[in-house]
Amino acid sequence: MNAAEHDHQRPPICVLGLGLIGGSLVRAATAAGRHVWGYNRSTEGTEAARAAGFDATTDLDLALRRARNAQALIVLAVPVPALSALLTRIAELAPECPLTDVTSVKSAVLQQVSEHGLAQRFVGGHPMAGTTESGWGAGDAKLFRDATWVVSVDDDVDPQVFAQVTRLALDCGSVVVPARSDEHDAAAAAISHLPHLLAEALAVTADGVPLAYSLAAGSFRDGTRVAATDPSLVRAMCESNPHGVLPALEEAMALLAATWNTLNAENSVELLVEAGYAARQRYEAHTRFDISGVSRTDADWRERLTEAGRQGGVLRVVP
Amino acid sequence: MNAAEHDHQRPPICVLGLGLIGGSLVRAATAAGRHVWGYNRSTEGTEAARAAGFDATTDLDLALRRARNAQALIVLAVPVPALSALLTRIAELAPECPLTDVTSVKSAVLQQVSEHGLAQRFVGGHPMAGTTESGWGAGDAKLFRDATWVVSVDDDVDPQVFAQVTRLALDCGSVVVPARSDEHDAAAAAISHLPHLLAEALAVTADGVPLAYSLAAGSFRDGTRVAATDPSLVRAMCESNPHGVLPALEEAMALLAATWNTLNAENSVELLVEAGYAARQRYEAHTRFDISGVSRTDADWRERLTEAGRQGGVLRVVP
Repeated sequence: MNAAEHDHQRPPICVLGLGLIGGSLVRAATAAGRHVWGYNRSTEGTEAARAAGFDATTDLDLALRRARNAQALIVLAVPVPALSALLTRIAELAPECPLTDVTSVKSAVLQQVSEHGLAQRFVGGHPMAGTTESGWGAGDAKLFRDATWVVSVDDDVDPQVFAQVTRLALDCGSVVVPARSDEHDAAAAAISHLPHLLAEALAVTADGVPLAYSLAAGSFRDGTRVAATDPSLVRAMCESNPHGVLPALEEAMALLAATWNTLNAENSVELLVEAGYAARQRYEAHTRFDISGVSRTDADWRERLTEAGRQGGVLRVVP
Repeated sequence: MNAAEHDHQRPPICVLGLGLIGGSLVRAATAAGRHVWGYNRSTEGTEAARAAGFDATTDLDLALRRARNAQALIVLAVPVPALSALLTRIAELAPECPLTDVTSVKSAVLQQVSEHGLAQRFVGGHPMAGTTESGWGAGDAKLFRDATWVVSVDDDVDPQVFAQVTRLALDCGSVVVPARSDEHDAAAAAISHLPHLLAEALAVTADGVPLAYSLAAGSFRDGTRVAATDPSLVRAMCESNPHGVLPALEEAMALLAATWNTLNAENSVELLVEAGYAARQRYEAHTRFDISGVSRTDADWRERLTEAGRQGGVLRVVP
């Protein structure tokens, strides 16, 4: 690519929120040679970031004016409940800036962005990385290395902003899975939110059964591991994605109810166990491939990237 | 203890079945200085055992006559469906021998033993150890080291046989959790059989969801790990313990249904998530202690051992 395109794909980055993800992004993007500044509501995070040599402020308006002047890519790195206040200020001070987020649900964020009139320059993102820690201090420049970073390709996403968000994810060391927001949320419900709810239900069921904890071994330890996650994080995931979680929960409940019935009536759990084993085998056999041959100048680039992502395709270059 | 008591607690061992558990038991008990011989239906297992220097036969009657003559402790180390044929021969050839088993369910085994008129000299056992491998070749003298070995203390268990089974478990390097058969099965349902069924349901729910396997990370991998278990083993566990599994499954389903309702009506999963987190904390805080001060000459020794096992107590000496 030529220098002009290089600059176009790599605008300055304005990160709003300096917690685990936002703080790691500031570090990772800076390490990748990007021009980055951050905003954090609390002084602790900001001061810690400054002490570490990063450009950070508690003045949101200042951060946004800089973004407007530099046409920076603004990254929403706060929890969903805190989004609305930020979006209101962005709509006032920097409505033309390209905009992305790093939140674990996509439809709910897209809806809020749309309600604030900012959908046109928005391409959602979800770096699938994290630890049980939180806050600036827990951040790590390597958090996104080899991680999967979902970048939204909904019907109207702007190809230039898509390129900028993808470039940022790649600069941070991730591979990019292109996906529609609604499909991301359905998949996240099945592979993350439902596992959390099943782990909670398993822990509660065993709790109070005499002997249970005395006999508990690997299958219980693994099956309840994510029940040790901070309840507020589990609630935030599930409660910001009811349209994904409700049908997944419903399917799991239907499978268990059918199994209860066959165990009760015919002393058999065969159907579920054979199907579960086969599904797990398919999961283990699932392999990634690099998406190639799609350009964002193609008329149907969004559909083709979406389909490739469904099949296991990842982007390692900006298409 | 004096020499006579020592001999009484350590009779010869006759192991029926030389698969993973039975084969490991032959090795472990031999290594502990015990006099051991084994029977296996197939010649492969027997020949492999003999080639490794162990005393093994495919002649069940011969093995049982030796047991009768030596008043050996007979160990049932075959799957539940194969028990009945063995018990019929034991009732004919060695009905006075002390008898135990190493099966993962206890009530179903106790019932079959009772139906064959062998309950008086039977004390069930369940060494909670295993690998995904099977057969003589997968056996390991160290399989039971530091494992939990449940030994039954149902209402009428014979104190002398209880001592012999406990001695065998301790000689193999395990700690012993004394438990009633029905409580063992309820606990095993909650901490092992239910986790398997939830893992199967999770795998099936995610299977076929576009993108799911492309995005799957730790919570899905851990939550479905045991769905990779050989389906026949999962079926054998669950289908031989319907009285334990059905209520556990019912409770989990009720928790999930209540959560579906609150997520749908109030957009909240708070109750389940807070309860699951608290339960997992209690599990992590659960600690073992050594049972002391109980002697099997006490009138209420069974009740006291049962209660101690419920609280997390383990035996490291024969009581």
